[in-house]
Amino acid sequence: MFKLISTEDYARAGILKTAHCKIETPFFMPVATKTAVKYLDPKDLEKIGIQAIISNAFVLSLRPGINVIKKADGIHKFMNFHNAIFTDSGGFQKIKDSFYVKSSDKGLHLRSPFDGKKYLLTPKEIMKIHNTLSSDAAMVLDEMPLHKQSRKQVELAVKRTHKWAQECIKYHKNKKQLLFGIAQGGLYPDLREKSAKFISSLQFDGFAFGGLAIGEPEKQTYKMINAQVKHFPKDKPRYLMGIGSPAQLINAIGAGADCFDSTFPTQNARHNTLFTSQGKLVIKNAKYKSDLKPVDKNCNCYICKNYTRAHIRHLMKMQEPNGLKYCTYHNIYFINNLMKQIRTAIKENSFNQFKKEFLKKI
Amino acid sequence: MFKLISTEDYARAGILKTAHCKIETPFFMPVATKTAVKYLDPKDLEKIGIQAIISNAFVLSLRPGINVIKKADGIHKFMNFHNAIFTDSGGFQKIKDSFYVKSSDKGLHLRSPFDGKKYLLTPKEIMKIHNTLSSDAAMVLDEMPLHKQSRKQVELAVKRTHKWAQECIKYHKNKKQLLFGIAQGGLYPDLREKSAKFISSLQFDGFAFGGLAIGEPEKQTYKMINAQVKHFPKDKPRYLMGIGSPAQLINAIGAGADCFDSTFPTQNARHNTLFTSQGKLVIKNAKYKSDLKPVDKNCNCYICKNYTRAHIRHLMKMQEPNGLKYCTYHNIYFINNLMKQIRTAIKENSFNQFKKEFLKKI
Repeated sequence: MFKLISTEDYARAGILKTAHCKIETPFFMPVATKTAVKYLDPKDLEKIGIQAIISNAFVLSLRPGINVIKKADGIHKFMNFHNAIFTDSGGFQKIKDSFYVKSSDKGLHLRSPFDGKKYLLTPKEIMKIHNTLSSDAAMVLDEMPLHKQSRKQVELAVKRTHKWAQECIKYHKNKKQLLFGIAQGGLYPDLREKSAKFISSLQFDGFAFGGLAIGEPEKQTYKMINAQVKHFPKDKPRYLMGIGSPAQLINAIGAGADCFDSTFPTQNARHNTLFTSQGKLVIKNAKYKSDLKPVDKNCNCYICKNYTRAHIRHLMKMQEPNGLKYCTYHNIYFINNLMKQIRTAIKENSFNQFKKEFLKKI
Repeated sequence: MFKLISTEDYARAGILKTAHCKIETPFFMPVATKTAVKYLDPKDLEKIGIQAIISNAFVLSLRPGINVIKKADGIHKFMNFHNAIFTDSGGFQKIKDSFYVKSSDKGLHLRSPFDGKKYLLTPKEIMKIHNTLSSDAAMVLDEMPLHKQSRKQVELAVKRTHKWAQECIKYHKNKKQLLFGIAQGGLYPDLREKSAKFISSLQFDGFAFGGLAIGEPEKQTYKMINAQVKHFPKDKPRYLMGIGSPAQLINAIGAGADCFDSTFPTQNARHNTLFTSQGKLVIKNAKYKSDLKPVDKNCNCYICKNYTRAHIRHLMKMQEPNGLKYCTYHNIYFINNLMKQIRTAIKENSFNQFKKEFLKKI
């Protein structure tokens, strides 16, 4: 399923074959929790060259409901996206008060933010949902420790994460679907290592660093990645969940990660912050009022080829949805193109050079 | 500039040549007050086949400001739309409390809804704005009577409308730009006739029925159209401002109008009401929850070819922007396609038959 093509120190380029796409790694997934990336329709995503997106199995089981997607013959047909779709489980919902009730050894106790109804989400239950969704890759159910929790609580969360990982494998019936394990450990390097080792001992198609980029100092993030990456199998893809910004992505690839998802590019777009080859640009700033240049003169995206900073600024100031679309489109294109450049650099053994120059400019 | 090709009773098919487009009439213009049709970018509009949109000169003079659009070399380049753009003056802002202060013989006293600053909008001033915008067609400044106003007040409004119409002609310097006159008269047939006669005596490129579709009973709307249409020159296009729904459009074309604009299709889309060949469809209804059919099986739009009722309903229930885009796209396509069918019917002398069948189905 995964083939390593090239490496440069820890950075890796490869191919991850899923049911719907031969994904070139490293790659970034825009977030489509409810089967939609805000302001970009599936055709936009395909035009940009997005290889994979990530949706949320638990949220989809609530709305529109699993039977609706089953009737449509899976999530791809339901939303009409033709490349890979990953589905997360619900573990990340722990940081959201609108969802999280409590955890027990059996699973996560969650409430629906739509009608308040309570659910016990077990490994068995979530695997049934993933299977019915027919996504390309399912993420196991995990218990994500929060940084405010004690070592004892983190140890318990790791223990549950490991138990649930084994149960997810047991209930994983859809063999066309990849299954990714998630290692936890909070901000304790020894627990991180222990979890990476245990999860790596199980038969997963990919391995994720979980519970990072949720508010810890960035230095800690990389420390935890470094503690785990050496224990993950070399011949499997490594997924750093919840990252991120252009600089974080390039650093994390340098640390050995292959796969990413984050709302950072789309949320920043909606808040006027655009990525460019010269660093970030806040489009609402007065200095762009009559600036007829594209957002980024080095960008080949449809937005940079068709619209000026002045026009986009006007739309954003006026809260016009087209402005939100243009900003989102550009940021997602920028990140996707950055991934492309990074893949080429790794293959040409010039990643470290590329990284150095990129981080200097932004 | 305008060539009549075919007529059937009062219904007409023709060609209106503007600086950017040979518009086939009758035609409908989506509203892009601030240089954007909500949720549809200019490429979407061109793909749908939209021949013209309408923006608002006074609003654009406030934001982004006339100098910004001047620097971009006109509204087409500013927003990157290549077909015709009409620009309205500000007369319609009279029904909006956020804009309207009072009227005087000199012009409209308006305030900016953005910063509260007050402006006296004179015919001379608005023509300067229209000229700088370089739109295909400018609408004169008019004083629109409100239906709650007395006959005396309506008479005064008509008098001012006529005076301002003459001044607009005087200050119209951009000869590539068409200039449309607007006839008023409230709900008084004799004032409507008088105004149509006077405006028709002036050298305009097109003639508009103003002050309709602002809350009066529909029967009255057509009575006023009938009172004016016979006085408008046969060799010039007739613009019924502020209409509308599929049924209103087909009836108004039957009454002799050639040109339309309205937020009705886009606003309805955002409120879940979709037009179909079988009548309206409220997409949020529970019965569409797992309905895998397209919105309208007889529609060839990109949305009906790619997305199901179930998917669009889910997005609308979840308040996802993509849902708003899909609904808007479909409704605008539907109206544009209806116009196309009507033009064909008029040329084939089957408009009355088409109209009868269409109104029976919806």
